[in-house]
Amino acid sequence: MCQLLGMSCNVPTDICFSFGGFSLRGGATDEHADGWGIAFFEGTGVRLFLDAQPSNSSPIAELVRQYPIKSRTVIAHIRKATQGQVALENCHPFQRELWGSYWVFAHNGNLPGFSPSRRQGWFSPVGATDSEAAFCHILEQLRLKHPAGRPAFEALVDSIAEVAGELRQLGTFNFLLSEGSLLFAFCSTKLSYVLRQAPFQSVRLLDKDLCVDFRQVTQPEDRVTVIATTPLTDGEVWTSFEPNELLVFQAGAIVARRSA
Amino acid sequence: MCQLLGMSCNVPTDICFSFGGFSLRGGATDEHADGWGIAFFEGTGVRLFLDAQPSNSSPIAELVRQYPIKSRTVIAHIRKATQGQVALENCHPFQRELWGSYWVFAHNGNLPGFSPSRRQGWFSPVGATDSEAAFCHILEQLRLKHPAGRPAFEALVDSIAEVAGELRQLGTFNFLLSEGSLLFAFCSTKLSYVLRQAPFQSVRLLDKDLCVDFRQVTQPEDRVTVIATTPLTDGEVWTSFEPNELLVFQAGAIVARRSA
Repeated sequence: MCQLLGMSCNVPTDICFSFGGFSLRGGATDEHADGWGIAFFEGTGVRLFLDAQPSNSSPIAELVRQYPIKSRTVIAHIRKATQGQVALENCHPFQRELWGSYWVFAHNGNLPGFSPSRRQGWFSPVGATDSEAAFCHILEQLRLKHPAGRPAFEALVDSIAEVAGELRQLGTFNFLLSEGSLLFAFCSTKLSYVLRQAPFQSVRLLDKDLCVDFRQVTQPEDRVTVIATTPLTDGEVWTSFEPNELLVFQAGAIVARRSA
Repeated sequence: MCQLLGMSCNVPTDICFSFGGFSLRGGATDEHADGWGIAFFEGTGVRLFLDAQPSNSSPIAELVRQYPIKSRTVIAHIRKATQGQVALENCHPFQRELWGSYWVFAHNGNLPGFSPSRRQGWFSPVGATDSEAAFCHILEQLRLKHPAGRPAFEALVDSIAEVAGELRQLGTFNFLLSEGSLLFAFCSTKLSYVLRQAPFQSVRLLDKDLCVDFRQVTQPEDRVTVIATTPLTDGEVWTSFEPNELLVFQAGAIVARRSA
């Protein structure tokens, strides 16, 4: 299996603190050492760092830990291979373009029951993971449901919930999906989030002896939600998703909720 | 305008030496300081580093200069903005997936006469450059010409030459395009390449006081072609492309040639 990390903020924020703890799970404090990746949205652009080395020792992961890249929406992933060998093309997050936006996707779980059709569609997997095939399937379904282009917000959320509800019946299907503004987080079995806003407090990483006092590094109006497979900190309250719950975050706040 | 750098090799090779000289042109030895990017193919996967900062001072470019990422096919670009503001989404190379492969594209030039249709196709630009629009147009034409999937080699080369021949009539259109195995290099006005193979020699960067003796870092069967808008070294022979010439490189060798 794998682990997911996501962040949604109302002002561009770096993820060095959270990624510092999370990336240790890729070979140091946990066994997810078969590659990693992180996508930072910046405007409509996206920076995607991928590496088949363990996140604990990868020089590129060290750059991401040290160099504060500020973003409103981030998706990261550390991999423990189930389907597909350890290789760059099998590292999450995956990226495609739909409706003139980049979409990014990362998956925790395994879909042994998923055998997508090989019919030529708009989106085809490059690697050998069930995860990338599921991502291509989601985008293909969005395109087919909305052939005229990107639908309004509620219809988009409904469509993503509908596809998530189908795929999660085929195995374990926790995922993060974003086009830069909206962060879709779906829990089939395990996912948690923490909302950080004023009054801020001091928290400690669980994977590393490191504290940060958010009172000293924030503005009163800042709002940040961090989403992770398992909580990254103590000293603050993490909320578990309900099974089969889709939450949609924007600017650090929950803007839609579906049971799928 | 911008500058292009490409590499095609028969064994995975790092590009630290060439990129060390090339990236200085992004703010130090030349004026291409409006962002940069580099794509390394690794198997069927691709690592794409992008940054809207000058390549001369970007911390991510520093990582690329220092950390030897080995690849058989590389495309890099430093930008001097013509169309589209300085922003991450306007940095080259651009990436899309077609026929289950990642395709990467970078452009030197300007296409003032190009106004692509806004009809909903498979590929839409995310940013505001003529370059990304041209890339989307090339992929769209490939898909339309070959709806059943990737054609055989000669037909693929013919199709790319055909689209290049149309677009270069609309402005200046030097480009590098790759799906990981083949590197398509098209010259409308300015592009050069150097083929390095045994007997190797010692060469010196033009943008930096740095020599490398390739006799000491190569195997006899190694073959590397480096392509650049203007030569990067002295001590070896760079060949200028003919105007409107498409050369296709694979494993460091020229495998097809068209006049378009």
